[in-house]
Amino acid sequence: MRIARFSHDETVSYAFVQKDEADGKDYLVELSGYPLGSNPVSPTGQRFALDGEGIRLLAPVIPSKVYGLAKNYEAHAEYMGEIKGMKGVHAPEDMVIFSKPSTSVIGPDDPIVFPKFSKDMNFEPELAVVIGRIAKNVSESDAMKYVLGFTCVNDVTLRDLQGDDPTWTRAKGFDTSCPLGPWIETDVNYKDAKISFTLNGEDVPEASGTTANLIHSVESQIAFISSFATLLPGDVILTGTPYATGSLHPGDEAIVHVEGIGDLRNVIVSAE
Amino acid sequence: MRIARFSHDETVSYAFVQKDEADGKDYLVELSGYPLGSNPVSPTGQRFALDGEGIRLLAPVIPSKVYGLAKNYEAHAEYMGEIKGMKGVHAPEDMVIFSKPSTSVIGPDDPIVFPKFSKDMNFEPELAVVIGRIAKNVSESDAMKYVLGFTCVNDVTLRDLQGDDPTWTRAKGFDTSCPLGPWIETDVNYKDAKISFTLNGEDVPEASGTTANLIHSVESQIAFISSFATLLPGDVILTGTPYATGSLHPGDEAIVHVEGIGDLRNVIVSAE
Repeated sequence: MRIARFSHDETVSYAFVQKDEADGKDYLVELSGYPLGSNPVSPTGQRFALDGEGIRLLAPVIPSKVYGLAKNYEAHAEYMGEIKGMKGVHAPEDMVIFSKPSTSVIGPDDPIVFPKFSKDMNFEPELAVVIGRIAKNVSESDAMKYVLGFTCVNDVTLRDLQGDDPTWTRAKGFDTSCPLGPWIETDVNYKDAKISFTLNGEDVPEASGTTANLIHSVESQIAFISSFATLLPGDVILTGTPYATGSLHPGDEAIVHVEGIGDLRNVIVSAE
Repeated sequence: MRIARFSHDETVSYAFVQKDEADGKDYLVELSGYPLGSNPVSPTGQRFALDGEGIRLLAPVIPSKVYGLAKNYEAHAEYMGEIKGMKGVHAPEDMVIFSKPSTSVIGPDDPIVFPKFSKDMNFEPELAVVIGRIAKNVSESDAMKYVLGFTCVNDVTLRDLQGDDPTWTRAKGFDTSCPLGPWIETDVNYKDAKISFTLNGEDVPEASGTTANLIHSVESQIAFISSFATLLPGDVILTGTPYATGSLHPGDEAIVHVEGIGDLRNVIVSAE
């Protein structure tokens, strides 16, 4: 099932995304309420063509917080150590977790704003986990009960600032650094989902991979994070980028694709 | 003016804290609405004695995010380098900013929970700034227009985890790591406010200092942070701890005092 958040005529609603067998087109079946936590939702009776005029998909959630894993694929850890000269060629044994604030979140087709204080903005295509229920001290075996579904993320990073910004608060938490979307997909083969990235219409094969190569599983990420912080409905975990990253420039079109979910497209613009 | 958030009979309200000249006692003059952003507030006509039965002060805001400055006093930077052996004896020229999530925030008298995965929990008494209006790319000269007031914070830190947790996400962002209160004071001599700390009833003189010794001023902190992230009403900035820190243990009573604001008291408990 696909759960989207969208705007139409100044109104923001949630919807199920459903294909109409008659015309083969995707529709947004509008819901009343917020389909996270234990809130009841029901269809309003209205539906909108996904490509209809005035219809705009938004970030599928506004998380209270976003956590991300650094170096959660051996190939990416080696790439960062060998190519980018960052310390720790191998992936760390323990999880290294960073965070992004709610103000970093944007939706599909929203612009990623290249800040004036950076010269090297990088893409990082990833699978993102959307939490559905309050989670504290959750075991790995119970972890998936707290997941509503999955979406795509571009974990946009200012590579040149990471050295002087050891906590990555600025490098990974600046406004527009967390594009999420296009929707939440509840049924994903998250143990082997292919991740790929397209830059200006061209596939970037060295940025691709599969979640089969995650060092720390989705379940272990939820267990570890919930051991120190309460996860709230709508909170998001970025599971790591599979391999190489690369630079983004104003005017670029960046598309993150995760198998079974869809495409998250954003264009980079200069800061005013 | 003092703005408090409190609960009485299952209801959560904001209030002005006012002294009654007749009996010399402090009262909570209840407000309808949320006194942040441009929301109008007005007295409900009800007031409650601050020490009345069933009256409980809460964290004065639930921030969307909390930012903190590392090593913002030369005395603390030297202490961390010499005593604690942490790299960078001198304070960094650029601001090093970390963050704490909303789930880390607790209020006055709420318990600080000592996590099982740490053996060294430290106190850090500080002045905290409460943002009142949306702030993006704010200049130093305009910065104070975006401030609602100030409160006390204990920037509780798991010192033994900081080394393996370079982003401090766990060490400074665990549940209950951000006690705030007892209220927001709008009129504080924030350029020279004395900070002190009491542990189990005894003053800890080496933890004390004055904001006159801040390396990066309140104004420059707001300007710097708002250059990369939008600050929302209720967001909080922790301005740094003045000098030495020290260990907390289950059963300890920790009181942060900031001149012109008041006392923030919390007791440490073991995780269940």
